[in-house]
Amino acid sequence: MRAHPAGPRHADQLVGGGAGAPAGDLNALLGVWPAGSVRNVDGALVVGGCDVRELAGQYGTPFMLLDEAEVRRRAREFRQSWGDAGQVYYAAKAFLATTMARWVIEEGLGVDVATGGELEVALRAGVPGARLLMHGNNKSMAEIERAISAGVRVIVIDSFDEIVRVADAARRAGVVQQVLVRATVGVEAHTHEFIATAHEDQKFGLSAASSAVDEAVRRIMKLPSLLFVGLHSHIGSQIFDTAGFELAAARIVALACRLRDEQGVEVTELNLGGGMGVAYLADDDPPQIAAMSQRIVQVVREQCQAAGLAMPMLACEPGRAIVGPAGITIYEVGTVKPVELDHGQVRSYVSVDGGMSDNIRTALYGAQYTVVLASRESMAEPMLTRVVGKHCESGDVVVRDAWLPSDLVPSDLIAVAATGAYCRSMASNYNLVPRPPVVAVGSGASQLVLRRETMDDLLAVDVGA
Amino acid sequence: MRAHPAGPRHADQLVGGGAGAPAGDLNALLGVWPAGSVRNVDGALVVGGCDVRELAGQYGTPFMLLDEAEVRRRAREFRQSWGDAGQVYYAAKAFLATTMARWVIEEGLGVDVATGGELEVALRAGVPGARLLMHGNNKSMAEIERAISAGVRVIVIDSFDEIVRVADAARRAGVVQQVLVRATVGVEAHTHEFIATAHEDQKFGLSAASSAVDEAVRRIMKLPSLLFVGLHSHIGSQIFDTAGFELAAARIVALACRLRDEQGVEVTELNLGGGMGVAYLADDDPPQIAAMSQRIVQVVREQCQAAGLAMPMLACEPGRAIVGPAGITIYEVGTVKPVELDHGQVRSYVSVDGGMSDNIRTALYGAQYTVVLASRESMAEPMLTRVVGKHCESGDVVVRDAWLPSDLVPSDLIAVAATGAYCRSMASNYNLVPRPPVVAVGSGASQLVLRRETMDDLLAVDVGA
Repeated sequence: MRAHPAGPRHADQLVGGGAGAPAGDLNALLGVWPAGSVRNVDGALVVGGCDVRELAGQYGTPFMLLDEAEVRRRAREFRQSWGDAGQVYYAAKAFLATTMARWVIEEGLGVDVATGGELEVALRAGVPGARLLMHGNNKSMAEIERAISAGVRVIVIDSFDEIVRVADAARRAGVVQQVLVRATVGVEAHTHEFIATAHEDQKFGLSAASSAVDEAVRRIMKLPSLLFVGLHSHIGSQIFDTAGFELAAARIVALACRLRDEQGVEVTELNLGGGMGVAYLADDDPPQIAAMSQRIVQVVREQCQAAGLAMPMLACEPGRAIVGPAGITIYEVGTVKPVELDHGQVRSYVSVDGGMSDNIRTALYGAQYTVVLASRESMAEPMLTRVVGKHCESGDVVVRDAWLPSDLVPSDLIAVAATGAYCRSMASNYNLVPRPPVVAVGSGASQLVLRRETMDDLLAVDVGA
Repeated sequence: MRAHPAGPRHADQLVGGGAGAPAGDLNALLGVWPAGSVRNVDGALVVGGCDVRELAGQYGTPFMLLDEAEVRRRAREFRQSWGDAGQVYYAAKAFLATTMARWVIEEGLGVDVATGGELEVALRAGVPGARLLMHGNNKSMAEIERAISAGVRVIVIDSFDEIVRVADAARRAGVVQQVLVRATVGVEAHTHEFIATAHEDQKFGLSAASSAVDEAVRRIMKLPSLLFVGLHSHIGSQIFDTAGFELAAARIVALACRLRDEQGVEVTELNLGGGMGVAYLADDDPPQIAAMSQRIVQVVREQCQAAGLAMPMLACEPGRAIVGPAGITIYEVGTVKPVELDHGQVRSYVSVDGGMSDNIRTALYGAQYTVVLASRESMAEPMLTRVVGKHCESGDVVVRDAWLPSDLVPSDLIAVAATGAYCRSMASNYNLVPRPPVVAVGSGASQLVLRRETMDDLLAVDVGA
């Protein structure tokens, strides 16, 4: 074990401690909130026309709200900027519920599913097989068979083992299954940086550099129940810059040329995966969806022209960039505890009624979030806080360093921005805490997407209960 | 964000790469397996008298098995070494189900619960209130009221806010509630190391150094619905050495003296929390339960004698040390993929049918595990592998570096040791993967503790489905 499971409890540097207090207004809603988020005359946060105090009264706390208009606007912006010749698949892993699937389908997107569970929810939402793409480094035979029987448009082949499995299942079902091959092109991108090497030390895909992709295509072409349509490449997550995508596109276009020249195989579909970044903090500078999308489409077009390749159907798989900024978690403050530190400084621990069970990203990735007092405004001085959950673990931190008004008290509501992606989808029942509901808001109305779990839900699997 | 959400895909050092291959027999069951684990004539792993191949056939994969005898033996060893004057509370957060609660109660332990959910499961299992202790840095009023109405023996006070809440709830219920105050004594321990400072930068407890504990006791003594019985201290987790406990005990005994001298208050109960470590790797050297427990009891007795204090009732809260080594996760291998790295070396990625949804500890804490081929023996050469899950994330790693036989193939079963604690309890439905069952084994028989989740379970909260 390399890290202390409870997180560091001593070695920690205090950020600011009063001196570093922000100059701006703590009540301001900067950058990371869904479009149209405002404070009303009472100073309470209003999202999608709904006052979070009323939502808390109706649904209880904690809860995640999802701004429907923000989800749809982002989905539409992707759809429009990838054009009619392109295809945008929403990456279900970021957050999936039947309501969410219906929204993106109505906006003209497809859905990228990675397991039988995600496939089942998409089908239950009425997503047609023709709008589905299936991923996964270890799809079970049952998952492959279900995908084929549901008419999933394309299955992404991730290993040699899988070629035979998909071919067998398709043959038995009497269909010809379209497949992409996932290629690793040696590019790993994150925020404004990317790393380029020959090989990648990761579980997904087949290496372009070692010609494993070429061998996979060779095998697929021999199998009459499979139809090779193209290549898939995914280079990272929370990406703010097109440079990594441009290099990846160049390498994958070169691979497409090699397949044409050496095997006479045409790549008619090119899927560049997901990874477009979003803002978590007010000074993050994520790309605009349209600008980044158009740049990527243009670069691939230029590279194909230069290589003498017909422009393939271009696809992408945004998840976080669609749902992340549309989600906000509302917690109620339970305790405010000033803790004296060794240097005589004081950090106030603000305990909320959720924590690492509904947002593991802070503990898992060191993720940073923006938090504001949501049930009212305050003109009090800023106070350095750490927003922590109610779990029996020191590492249960929601926001590591946050400035909140010094008159914060129990029963205040606080809002954590940009929690739409990878929070509810990775939620646990740690400490047997029921998972919070997801509430869609829009035009001043609200509706449940996922209801709150109950103790009966948790006990349902306990055969001794 | 400090870490790449997908985990490093390039910067990684290859361990060994053939040269560092283990000299020993890969089939050997060393150190980390429940007592009595053997390989049968077929070479298959047998735990609690059950062949894991038969369990896989009956319950499907993946699943977690729990060796009942190992749980009971560990619980009993704690109970015996803390003596009749002591109290051992099983820390429910490590893993809780009604069956598990019944086992530890039958062995004479109490249960430490940290939320309303854990309390509810304990009560459903028939645990009497007199055997319960309640923790939590942010207990809700509903949780406090439920604890008091259930007659929970002692509530651990974690903040000033809480003193009034518990007092109010007790007064309304017409009872006098026994309380401990959680003190931070400036000791943080892990494996063979500990750090000592004055203050602690953490959410739990009240500082002994800043006299916050003294003030809390003063307030409690004024409230007729509360009965102050003593102090609580928890210094860390996965601790292999008594030195940290000894210093913490010295500081808390000094605090008890101060309370006696300055306030005339007697500490009749001293709870030293949990944290006793277990082996995850064969060369880990965790403490023996009895030896470490007896040493701690002896040290506290000596310190009390030196300070002229009557020996208080001594309590502890082991979780991992009871259930951790009793649990084993069995996965089926789905794919074996040799990946060529930049130095010309090869790492084989072994994909299994679970992953970070059933064991987040590798990704969250960098935890290390022991894994063996479980469905058969093999004399093949060792191969350096990384055991990964089926989730759509590069960081979905179960065992980062593991030597497995090079003839490993899909459909082989592998066993990951010491997964009893903080795996199922922190499990998620990431990628909408249903959580695996927990199967108790003993004397050649098996029974479900928690059944496998179904898609219907997952869809139960989806109001649009």
